[in-house]
Amino acid sequence: MTDDIKVNNIEELKSLIQKKNNAAIIGCITPLHPSDIAKLLTNLEEEETIYTFSLLDPQTASAVLLEVDEHTREKLIASISKTELTEIVDEMATDDAADVIAELPKEEAKTVLEGIGWEESAEVQKLLKYPEDTAGGIMQTELVMVNEDATIQETIEQVRTKSEEIPNIHNVFVVDDSIRLVGIVPLEKLIFARPHLPVKDIMNNKPVKVLADTDQEEVAKIFQKYDAVTLPVVDKDEKLLGRITIDDVMDVIEEEIFEDFYKMASLNTDERVLDSPSRSFKMRFPWLLINLATAFLAASVVKVFENTIQMVVTLAVFMPVVAGMGGNAATQTITVVVRGLALGELELKYAKKVLIKEVMVGFANGVLNGVVAAIVAYLFGVNYMIGLLLFLAMIANLVIAGFSGTVIPLILKWYKADPALSATVFVTTCTDVGGFFSFLGLAAVFIKYGLL
Amino acid sequence: MTDDIKVNNIEELKSLIQKKNNAAIIGCITPLHPSDIAKLLTNLEEEETIYTFSLLDPQTASAVLLEVDEHTREKLIASISKTELTEIVDEMATDDAADVIAELPKEEAKTVLEGIGWEESAEVQKLLKYPEDTAGGIMQTELVMVNEDATIQETIEQVRTKSEEIPNIHNVFVVDDSIRLVGIVPLEKLIFARPHLPVKDIMNNKPVKVLADTDQEEVAKIFQKYDAVTLPVVDKDEKLLGRITIDDVMDVIEEEIFEDFYKMASLNTDERVLDSPSRSFKMRFPWLLINLATAFLAASVVKVFENTIQMVVTLAVFMPVVAGMGGNAATQTITVVVRGLALGELELKYAKKVLIKEVMVGFANGVLNGVVAAIVAYLFGVNYMIGLLLFLAMIANLVIAGFSGTVIPLILKWYKADPALSATVFVTTCTDVGGFFSFLGLAAVFIKYGLL
Repeated sequence: MTDDIKVNNIEELKSLIQKKNNAAIIGCITPLHPSDIAKLLTNLEEEETIYTFSLLDPQTASAVLLEVDEHTREKLIASISKTELTEIVDEMATDDAADVIAELPKEEAKTVLEGIGWEESAEVQKLLKYPEDTAGGIMQTELVMVNEDATIQETIEQVRTKSEEIPNIHNVFVVDDSIRLVGIVPLEKLIFARPHLPVKDIMNNKPVKVLADTDQEEVAKIFQKYDAVTLPVVDKDEKLLGRITIDDVMDVIEEEIFEDFYKMASLNTDERVLDSPSRSFKMRFPWLLINLATAFLAASVVKVFENTIQMVVTLAVFMPVVAGMGGNAATQTITVVVRGLALGELELKYAKKVLIKEVMVGFANGVLNGVVAAIVAYLFGVNYMIGLLLFLAMIANLVIAGFSGTVIPLILKWYKADPALSATVFVTTCTDVGGFFSFLGLAAVFIKYGLL
Repeated sequence: MTDDIKVNNIEELKSLIQKKNNAAIIGCITPLHPSDIAKLLTNLEEEETIYTFSLLDPQTASAVLLEVDEHTREKLIASISKTELTEIVDEMATDDAADVIAELPKEEAKTVLEGIGWEESAEVQKLLKYPEDTAGGIMQTELVMVNEDATIQETIEQVRTKSEEIPNIHNVFVVDDSIRLVGIVPLEKLIFARPHLPVKDIMNNKPVKVLADTDQEEVAKIFQKYDAVTLPVVDKDEKLLGRITIDDVMDVIEEEIFEDFYKMASLNTDERVLDSPSRSFKMRFPWLLINLATAFLAASVVKVFENTIQMVVTLAVFMPVVAGMGGNAATQTITVVVRGLALGELELKYAKKVLIKEVMVGFANGVLNGVVAAIVAYLFGVNYMIGLLLFLAMIANLVIAGFSGTVIPLILKWYKADPALSATVFVTTCTDVGGFFSFLGLAAVFIKYGLL
């Protein structure tokens, strides 16, 4: 029930831009939510986008810059002066500022860091040290913290002071004199407590926390486990470094799931849809080369049966059907297994059960699809023995698909490798080799006994 | 930094179970977080799991039941009496209770609904009416609401009263006499406000809200857009029905992304890794049948060139290499495009840019892989003209892969269909047909001109 921007709004905006009616442009877009402004900007022509962006005040520009896609962000950053960029970055939370600065050329990054004031600059530089896929890399340093000796009243004062610059406070972190985390107080507890009591009395003194070098995927799991909205980040001496809020974790969850599927499709996890052709080419070529090697492995199986094909050339027509169906069935199995492993639904103790199931499903699908394939081949007007071959080879290859599609991701998982990584390459090699071998091998036997 | 359960704990627990030392079992697991207990239970033998679960108090059992996987949940529910189940469901929030009851056989559901007390029962029955993938299906009815005429003091009292039974309050919802939502007050605002003021004065009177029939995917997008932690759900007359909290939305995000990839792999989105073989078979068979139809379409292309293969049987050895590489390259392209569309990075206005890029990447990968393939074929000891054929057909088919892998998901999106749905089936049909046609067609031309 958010008001979607209507097309006539865009047309209206475009004509205002043409007339350079700046006051009207600002009046028309400033009341919108930053993510709506971002959407509007990406639907304009590039020049119009840059022009409109230049009219925004630093605070709005800062929020909009974080909402647009990477591609537009690069264009916008390139379009403004270093001074303007510094003003915009200055408005950001430290984690967002660090993300933007990390993408800048070294020289420009230095200028911006010098411009944003030493306090924020120091915080951002600290954040830049953590790898971006760790708790330290996604945390922000903006938080409300009080000493364990503070009273409830002092704590409330602290929240009041900070609440103007920090959104989504949710919790107050309680620390000792060495800034070591000793407890957490959710805001609702502050409402009911008596003001003169020490904050210690109402804090949760066994707070869930994460180490700065914890992998972001693990952080997401901890958030989900505890249904947390915000979690403190500490170093190995328990010193409070920052906090992670749930909105950043949601992005992590999306990222991590897509990584699994990128790996399954033999893609580099850094590739994005708007990357340049040369970047995409460089990232995909090595994977395709591996696929090429496996394709030749399958071809060498066909080569063994060249004489068989020479005798009955129709075999060449139907052999890709068996191999292809095996590949499709295997992809179904791998996808179900990888999802089960990723969400924790598939514990290793269920491995045998799942393996038996997948082999049974492969067998049943082999029988039914084999029957259909045999009938269609018959309608193609070929020797009915080829239909029988198709039937038998389909069963064999769909059983191979179910077996390898389950076993290979599980083996990868067992050896602590990523079950998604290239599972598809290994498994489709099995089904290609299996498909050609079962179909052509059976054909050779049929020919030997004069059945074909 | 959560304490992982150590294996010796499990062994210890197993021996306690064998000795039926119930007090020790309870003492050992009750202090754990429900999701840790759930993990522990799934690592026991089935009988041990059921035995341990039977020892838990209803409140813990309720939390654990929501954390275990679907498979274990079914077993546990089947293992306890209706009375015990009723007690356990009674402890749950309405949205969780509705989810559990929705899975029960009709008779049992009725018994539980009658047992949990008419007030909660009425709420749960209301929730059961909403489809499970809508805002109504994922909302809970537990929330804090006050009339718009209430004072701050009265509002705080209301929060205090409810805070014992409702976790994660975050916001108070302000309604008029007809329970229509008129505003929202975040808890932190209550802390600073003067108690005698009307709550109206501090509320946000343009709250973001969602309609009960909004699709859950749309709900997740609204949460992400506004970085919300909780959102109210209303009917079309603005009447407040419930609220959705961010932890439920995180599950939705995971579900929706996996749905995309299930669709790409030709899978029914309801399939789970621990489903029975017959259920999996029934869900996969129709998709494989569609794939079989497309495989025969590709086979019929090969059939056209039967005479060509009869003349040079080695063509049969290498034709699957060209088709297979096209399929792999296409899968890369589709995956990148579907991800871009799902995350909103790929707006339709970038369509042309991405299409040109993918065709260029396909061309470049075709040239390089084509060269490698030609060299390998030469090492296989075949006519060097077959190497040339491989080179040319590889380029043609990888361009086809880039083109169809981009255009087909975009067309599906353009016509408001799901870009992930069966995109892979359509596209690999293109690359199979394209691969066989380009390789065998060129071969026929080569033969005609005496080059092969």
